[in-house]
Amino acid sequence: MEIPDVVWVIVAGALVLFMTPGLALFYGGLTQTKSAVNMMMMSFAAMGLVALTWALWGNAISGADAVAGGLFGNPAADFALFESFAEQESLLDVGFGATFAIITTALISGAIADRAKFSAWMIFVPIWMTLVYAPLAFWVWGDGGLLTDGFIGSAVGEAVDFAGGLVVHMCAGLAALALVLVIGPRSNFAPTKPHNVPFVLLGASILWFGWFGFNVGEAGDAAQAGINWINTMLAPAAALVAWLITEWARGKKPTPVGAASGIVAGLVAITPACAYVNPLGAIILGLISGVICCFAVDFKYGKYDDTLDVVGLHFVAGLWGTIAIGLFGSEALIQVDFPEHSGGLLLGGGFELLWAQIVACVVTLVFTFVATYIIGLAIHKTIGFRVEEEVEEGGIDSVAHQTTAYGAEVPTAK
Amino acid sequence: MEIPDVVWVIVAGALVLFMTPGLALFYGGLTQTKSAVNMMMMSFAAMGLVALTWALWGNAISGADAVAGGLFGNPAADFALFESFAEQESLLDVGFGATFAIITTALISGAIADRAKFSAWMIFVPIWMTLVYAPLAFWVWGDGGLLTDGFIGSAVGEAVDFAGGLVVHMCAGLAALALVLVIGPRSNFAPTKPHNVPFVLLGASILWFGWFGFNVGEAGDAAQAGINWINTMLAPAAALVAWLITEWARGKKPTPVGAASGIVAGLVAITPACAYVNPLGAIILGLISGVICCFAVDFKYGKYDDTLDVVGLHFVAGLWGTIAIGLFGSEALIQVDFPEHSGGLLLGGGFELLWAQIVACVVTLVFTFVATYIIGLAIHKTIGFRVEEEVEEGGIDSVAHQTTAYGAEVPTAK
Amino acid sequence: MEIPDVVWVIVAGALVLFMTPGLALFYGGLTQTKSAVNMMMMSFAAMGLVALTWALWGNAISGADAVAGGLFGNPAADFALFESFAEQESLLDVGFGATFAIITTALISGAIADRAKFSAWMIFVPIWMTLVYAPLAFWVWGDGGLLTDGFIGSAVGEAVDFAGGLVVHMCAGLAALALVLVIGPRSNFAPTKPHNVPFVLLGASILWFGWFGFNVGEAGDAAQAGINWINTMLAPAAALVAWLITEWARGKKPTPVGAASGIVAGLVAITPACAYVNPLGAIILGLISGVICCFAVDFKYGKYDDTLDVVGLHFVAGLWGTIAIGLFGSEALIQVDFPEHSGGLLLGGGFELLWAQIVACVVTLVFTFVATYIIGLAIHKTIGFRVEEEVEEGGIDSVAHQTTAYGAEVPTAK
Repeated sequence: MEIPDVVWVIVAGALVLFMTPGLALFYGGLTQTKSAVNMMMMSFAAMGLVALTWALWGNAISGADAVAGGLFGNPAADFALFESFAEQESLLDVGFGATFAIITTALISGAIADRAKFSAWMIFVPIWMTLVYAPLAFWVWGDGGLLTDGFIGSAVGEAVDFAGGLVVHMCAGLAALALVLVIGPRSNFAPTKPHNVPFVLLGASILWFGWFGFNVGEAGDAAQAGINWINTMLAPAAALVAWLITEWARGKKPTPVGAASGIVAGLVAITPACAYVNPLGAIILGLISGVICCFAVDFKYGKYDDTLDVVGLHFVAGLWGTIAIGLFGSEALIQVDFPEHSGGLLLGGGFELLWAQIVACVVTLVFTFVATYIIGLAIHKTIGFRVEEEVEEGGIDSVAHQTTAYGAEVPTAK
Repeated sequence: MEIPDVVWVIVAGALVLFMTPGLALFYGGLTQTKSAVNMMMMSFAAMGLVALTWALWGNAISGADAVAGGLFGNPAADFALFESFAEQESLLDVGFGATFAIITTALISGAIADRAKFSAWMIFVPIWMTLVYAPLAFWVWGDGGLLTDGFIGSAVGEAVDFAGGLVVHMCAGLAALALVLVIGPRSNFAPTKPHNVPFVLLGASILWFGWFGFNVGEAGDAAQAGINWINTMLAPAAALVAWLITEWARGKKPTPVGAASGIVAGLVAITPACAYVNPLGAIILGLISGVICCFAVDFKYGKYDDTLDVVGLHFVAGLWGTIAIGLFGSEALIQVDFPEHSGGLLLGGGFELLWAQIVACVVTLVFTFVATYIIGLAIHKTIGFRVEEEVEEGGIDSVAHQTTAYGAEVPTAK
Repeated sequence: MEIPDVVWVIVAGALVLFMTPGLALFYGGLTQTKSAVNMMMMSFAAMGLVALTWALWGNAISGADAVAGGLFGNPAADFALFESFAEQESLLDVGFGATFAIITTALISGAIADRAKFSAWMIFVPIWMTLVYAPLAFWVWGDGGLLTDGFIGSAVGEAVDFAGGLVVHMCAGLAALALVLVIGPRSNFAPTKPHNVPFVLLGASILWFGWFGFNVGEAGDAAQAGINWINTMLAPAAALVAWLITEWARGKKPTPVGAASGIVAGLVAITPACAYVNPLGAIILGLISGVICCFAVDFKYGKYDDTLDVVGLHFVAGLWGTIAIGLFGSEALIQVDFPEHSGGLLLGGGFELLWAQIVACVVTLVFTFVATYIIGLAIHKTIGFRVEEEVEEGGIDSVAHQTTAYGAEVPTAK
């Protein structure tokens, strides 16, 4: 049975677009009260700016008609806004792609919470989407892309990434790492309490809800939709349980931030693998992601100030999920989309797939980190990427947005 | 490819029904703490009362079988609750229509925040839906309606309003204006701060999410669904960016209320036009709506107390979007539904379509304003539409609902 | 016209899974600030634990291949995680079933708010799902189940329960009653104020939104989908209005908790009946559920401490909705699924159907109450089901989760 494409893409696109407000709530709840508005505004700015620039040129860069030897798509090839009306149906695909670009960009903002200049963020967003996200999406998912049938993919085998372990989560996590190294830590870099736990839990739940659009939205048939759906339920469920138990085992109590982070870790880890591991594999993948991310988010202290753990969740779980395909991907499931691949190493498939995944991770890592570092540094050295220290301490909301989250008095002057 | 109607209407109806709680959150967050419960309760009362009365008679009034020379549908023609079971499928259409009637009615409540008597509102809601919304819906969308092939439509050409620029947004905005002129301003009419900014942003996001059901729910085929979907993403994105930049240009900071209002302004403006402008047109339409509404919401001071800017957002953007079809509607897209129309004036289509749109706006304006004014006045002169002044100052929640939003002490007597 | 199963189940499953975070918000808003985190965490723990155990064995117990004379399904018959990939499509059904098991289990937690030990809850959840929910689901919905064509169903006629009046709502409400009798009342058992009314209203709205997946998700064709959809809109609308008017009639004001509770009461009551009463029947059913539950939630004082009224809402409305099918179920609608049944008593169908419904309610009542009481007592007598009294008074969040809902200082030690 075929999935009736149009209805499902209409719904899936709306679900994925709704993820970014969910992220804004998740991030906003995790921050301190005095910077919650700014945190949310970074996500909403990304919704506005990326939607527009994706339709104007991002979709084309990530799309067909490889130029420059597979480095990016032809920005002039498929100009979404002017294409002939006979091709309107593909507008849904442009829109669906925009929702992915939006959330990937918005994810980065959690790392630089409490100290980023809002104007710098509004400049960073369209540049980064254009020069980092869109080309990487082309490399991994485009015809003739570097990691599919372009230079590297031809040499080591095509990378397997169903819904964005490389393109969305490693990419956002590595960009976050590069940016925090450019702009430096908060003046008082220390663990903080979430100012609104129900927002954190609701935000994570909206992400989970929308993620069914994210992971199932491009399923090729009903059988793949079934696998992707149940894996998108099981992996975060397993990671949630694993995170709470890991907290217990480490002598702490099970926390709501742990529950929410576990959900996100499991969702990130299953994203590249959702169509390629069986449900038992999804549970194992989720359990492991919950354990490793519970440790990974503590790694930053004394090293780099990734405020809301974009690196510890999205880079780490995205890397784990992408590599895990090479460990226990199911040959039968993988060959639905990649007939040339065998299954994962632990299921007897040899090193071939694992190697392709490792190479793709290294390429993603080097490209994203270096490119983002350069973009971030250029903005930081020109207009500056940080607010003044007294603004950071007094709270960024009242200065940058003339507003406080909950109605207290705000100076009316700028 | 046909859209499989049933599945999509099931989903679209649920999405549109979910918009009204989103509106309640948007409005509730914008008000002061002491009247947030009352603000939300007005939306929930509308959900209950309009759902019932729409099924009992509103759907028939808005529907087929024109009577009184096209002034309204025959209330007895198509009684939803007793129709034969062979026709159950159309129950989905009754339900979908109910969700539109609900949100339109609920929209009005933002204008009269902080001072309306709850019992008066519960009386106003079913009367207004019956005597204003349902007939207007018939005029614009019904077979034989006044503005389609009835008296006026035959004379000047059929009005073009895909999802409710006239029927929903101008109608709600004008009803709001009429009501605030009847009941008068708050005792302390002045700008107030939103008591909960995350609610404002989440509420606007739920509206955006649900609006995909609103604008795409009745798309006739996959091509139209594609246009409607991407326009429903692009116009609010453009309006959000435009509003923030306009704030900047006016010497203020980009505010979260501006972001949320921009999203709503863009969504309202694209509502009538979503199937009839191409994506570039949607961006332009959205940008302009963000700029004009950013100014329009300041117009009320010293004139009328539209507390949460129902006039400045829904009337203004609804008017702009309806007129804009006559300016840059695409002939190819319009002729899918209206073969007799040419395109917009600026695209070489002449004044014909623009004129039909202007006439429809004038009819909507006069009818809605006058009818609502009379209904509001009748209620105000009999049972009264306002709470006592001491209730208004002490906070309407504790008196009218024996509750406060966040659990503080409330007098237990009435 | 057939419903395209796959797309709709993808969406409906996501909607139903999203109900549990909605429930967490509804319950969390109703509790006091000092135990809101714990309240929400009980729902999230259920999401993790039930998703995993349902896929591992719960689905099989509730499913085909009756063993033990129809008492439960064969846990080894249809092991979801290892089934052959040719059968992937049924994974969607496993996932859809999991979302029902999750919300049913989570519903119970509202009764034991403020005093349950989190570790005891994490042990209770998988045991209860396995030994109570899964067998009951098999009895009511399984081939060869006790109340379908098993021992009792053969004798008195098959029970009619479209989406879970018996299996979900009576079951959760009775389990709640058993548990509160085991663990006893809060040390200060008295009415409390909701700490966050907007969360209560938003949570109830998310439940309503998701309930369209719950009640329409397994509609057999488009006609049934139409009936189920409009009934899922009308019954809660009627119950909301009825509850507010009942509050008024009892000398109180219409409260937001009343509005939210009315929505839930109407949704619960229509759940078993949504496909089997016509829209006018749904309105009547909803009106009555709003009135009786408005009284039922006051019954507990001095008797049993059902903190958030799981008994008064889910048991009472679930019972009412299940019995109501036997009173005014439509023969034409019922015979779509049960050709052997006539309609309800008041519509001339005789006592036959009513009797089958009453027997099914008694079986559900006795089994659920006794089995849950035993499980609860076993846990309470071993590891204990309650926190210490000083924890209950100081607030369970800071001790059990090292967190407070809104970021105030928390002792960092355990």
